[in-house]
Amino acid sequence: MSVNERQVKHITPKSEDFSRWYQEIIQKAELADYAPMKGMMVIRPYGFAVWENIQHHLDRRIKATGHVNAYFPLFIPESFLQKEAEHVEGFSPEVAWVTAGGKEDLEERLAVRPTSEAIIGPMYAKWIRSWRDLPLLINQWANIVRWEKVTRPFLRTTEFLWQEGHTCHETAEEAEEETLRVLAMYREFVETELAIPVLSGRKTLREKFAGAQMTYALEALMSDGKALQMGTSHNLGQHFSKAFDIKFEDRRQKLQYVWQTSWGMTTRLVGALVMVHGDDAGLRFPPRVAPVQAVIVPISVGDWKTSVLPAARAAADALRAAGIRVLCDAREEATPGWKFAEHEMRGVPLRVEIGPRDVQAGQAVIVRRDTRAKEKAAFEALPVRVASLLDEVQKRLYAEADSFLAANIREARSFEEFREILEKDRGFIRGGWCGEGACEDTIKNATMATIRVIPLDETEPVSGGLCLACGREAKGRPYFARAY
Amino acid sequence: MSVNERQVKHITPKSEDFSRWYQEIIQKAELADYAPMKGMMVIRPYGFAVWENIQHHLDRRIKATGHVNAYFPLFIPESFLQKEAEHVEGFSPEVAWVTAGGKEDLEERLAVRPTSEAIIGPMYAKWIRSWRDLPLLINQWANIVRWEKVTRPFLRTTEFLWQEGHTCHETAEEAEEETLRVLAMYREFVETELAIPVLSGRKTLREKFAGAQMTYALEALMSDGKALQMGTSHNLGQHFSKAFDIKFEDRRQKLQYVWQTSWGMTTRLVGALVMVHGDDAGLRFPPRVAPVQAVIVPISVGDWKTSVLPAARAAADALRAAGIRVLCDAREEATPGWKFAEHEMRGVPLRVEIGPRDVQAGQAVIVRRDTRAKEKAAFEALPVRVASLLDEVQKRLYAEADSFLAANIREARSFEEFREILEKDRGFIRGGWCGEGACEDTIKNATMATIRVIPLDETEPVSGGLCLACGREAKGRPYFARAY
Repeated sequence: MSVNERQVKHITPKSEDFSRWYQEIIQKAELADYAPMKGMMVIRPYGFAVWENIQHHLDRRIKATGHVNAYFPLFIPESFLQKEAEHVEGFSPEVAWVTAGGKEDLEERLAVRPTSEAIIGPMYAKWIRSWRDLPLLINQWANIVRWEKVTRPFLRTTEFLWQEGHTCHETAEEAEEETLRVLAMYREFVETELAIPVLSGRKTLREKFAGAQMTYALEALMSDGKALQMGTSHNLGQHFSKAFDIKFEDRRQKLQYVWQTSWGMTTRLVGALVMVHGDDAGLRFPPRVAPVQAVIVPISVGDWKTSVLPAARAAADALRAAGIRVLCDAREEATPGWKFAEHEMRGVPLRVEIGPRDVQAGQAVIVRRDTRAKEKAAFEALPVRVASLLDEVQKRLYAEADSFLAANIREARSFEEFREILEKDRGFIRGGWCGEGACEDTIKNATMATIRVIPLDETEPVSGGLCLACGREAKGRPYFARAY
Repeated sequence: MSVNERQVKHITPKSEDFSRWYQEIIQKAELADYAPMKGMMVIRPYGFAVWENIQHHLDRRIKATGHVNAYFPLFIPESFLQKEAEHVEGFSPEVAWVTAGGKEDLEERLAVRPTSEAIIGPMYAKWIRSWRDLPLLINQWANIVRWEKVTRPFLRTTEFLWQEGHTCHETAEEAEEETLRVLAMYREFVETELAIPVLSGRKTLREKFAGAQMTYALEALMSDGKALQMGTSHNLGQHFSKAFDIKFEDRRQKLQYVWQTSWGMTTRLVGALVMVHGDDAGLRFPPRVAPVQAVIVPISVGDWKTSVLPAARAAADALRAAGIRVLCDAREEATPGWKFAEHEMRGVPLRVEIGPRDVQAGQAVIVRRDTRAKEKAAFEALPVRVASLLDEVQKRLYAEADSFLAANIREARSFEEFREILEKDRGFIRGGWCGEGACEDTIKNATMATIRVIPLDETEPVSGGLCLACGREAKGRPYFARAY
């Protein structure tokens, strides 16, 4: 899109209308665009580069924990989807159906995968014979289709990209260990790479994955006070192994059903980065996943093409050689001020300005996107200083989000108080729950808030409080929130 | 799959039945398996690791030539597919149609993308305004569905994975340059990384991509004498920009339609690696794309777990630290001999054997998969020697394939001779062609051989010969072959 079309300055302030800000910044920063079909989006190069960085960092961790990648078919015959009763009930309302191939109608409808348990199951049944084949630790990067009624770029779209791990184990204990190992891996990944602090824990039965025995999840707080589920790890028990007849001969030569897990993270993480770190001026990408980590802007005055541009290009080369993702913005048709605003909007963590006097002094001005702090650095010190500042920006964005999260977890001792906090502050609210689905529903129907997670390690007594909804003794103290 | 199931030894020899050998080796080496739906396959971890290496090497080249990745929707509304007449005619017989979402029938059918020109077109029309937005150089890694009647793992499957580049340019000349630049990039990639020599050139109008102005392609020779198309690069001219109204304001403020290209390479490249380099003992992967470059087999005699295994593990660590993809096969349930055969079958370029006497002598035995040559190397010299041998194996596999290709390009001066060569030797046959589609059809109908490519730089006189089919003066001397 040409510069004149971009209208850098005209973004609705985040503080004024968060939802509009989100949709505008996604489009103006060219992260994504609306496809001509309802609910579908195009991930543009700048947004896709974020996803590629996410993939890079997450795939590395998935492999380091012993998993290997594979690829399973996009289509699932309807009869396969129906094998696990809860699974088909949960997913069939969201399935896109292929009913014809070429000129011919199909004998059996094919689901475009809404998740892959039901196509992976029959393959695992074929591949697994003995305990020696276990654990089977496979991951897949793929596109997924769910026919959603209400959609929002990155957060909920008819098609999205994800990774889905699907593992098989000898015992229930090993499956539970894997489920929690992946949850911990996800948490470390999100905190380290995306600079987003999260709450982790288990989901209620109402909120668990259709077909799972138990779902664990990570939840983050967006800067408008709503929660976003960042990733899930499911202990499938033997639900799918019984449905798809995935058996193995155990160490005592007895036939057993395998114990399974599945887990996933999606392109919605790009939306989380926008909503956690963005500000009125636009995006603020954590350096470790930023498509461009530092932009060099030559100050275009006088004979800048001969006096400034060579130094700017040399600085870019030096940064690139140091492994930094750098862009030298030498466009003639845009002023330096325009470029400053544009790269701020696009969330580039550091800006390096080089003008005629800087060239004479052998230095550049570095401006941080997060604090807007400026400093000077000699040309020869640039690569080391930029690398060090990128680390600082990464840490500071995390610290900022972490303070915000800490400040937005509140205790509610009564339903009255719960409602008040929701109206006034949003954020996560911790309160007593008796464990009944009915009470969960009561709270949800009255407030649109749901139980996001039940924490795994209660550092304080679990009981003692009262259920927010029914007033009986609480059996747990989950985190509630309104969520995307 | 447990060791006892693998039956390493029982593969139909390649020389006896090539087609059966191909299908058996794909399954037994666990590259892929048949999915329970007709024509669909599962890419297993060992096969997917090859694809990941291909992606790594190709993506690097795509980016180095200025392209960026993005992601467009899986579905294309039928009306979009119909906008370019030749395109819809070519692809609609192969389209899988989505007709329902959840419980509701769709108002308009959605094609599962058979290629993405028709969904990318409308987005480009929205994004491009001025010559400053050009060239637009976008690539996508995606899954593709074509409802094929006859399928074969990797070579032709209902769903496959690929990359598709889609670019827009200011002038016809620039689009043609891009088309040929990508063809050259593909060729260098295939020769360097896959160790496969290729013929390159343009396709006839009958064989070109539906909707393209001109298609260029790479063709390789499989070891059974049949050709395989390895990649294509299309000059789309203004066919799609006119159909989708993709216009820009040129440097003289005049509205023009953009000039486009598209180009792709697919998972069939994995099949090409199998068919070009494999032998009676199984696969032979070129080291640069081999999932495992060197396997270390500790010789399990006596107290090998204390006397041999530590040295084997240390050798593996040293190779890994040197950036070599290494596996230490310490399985207890398989004998060394079994492991040798299995890793040979799986095409691991180098085997490193370490026995008790080797440990005492401080050395290991290295065995090449390509020549089966053995040599000894001191432990401390292993990383350097293995790296150097991997380079040699890579070069030798290329040289072998190149000799085979050179020996299997034959001249035919008459249709009689053409038929004889096809019956006796197969391979590529070069001969005269008048340029008429009717003669192309005559030859195809009589022999199942098609024009694979018309070479771009004729080093010998173009005319002078006669058309194999009609006997009139030849206007070109293309390469013919039977092809997959």
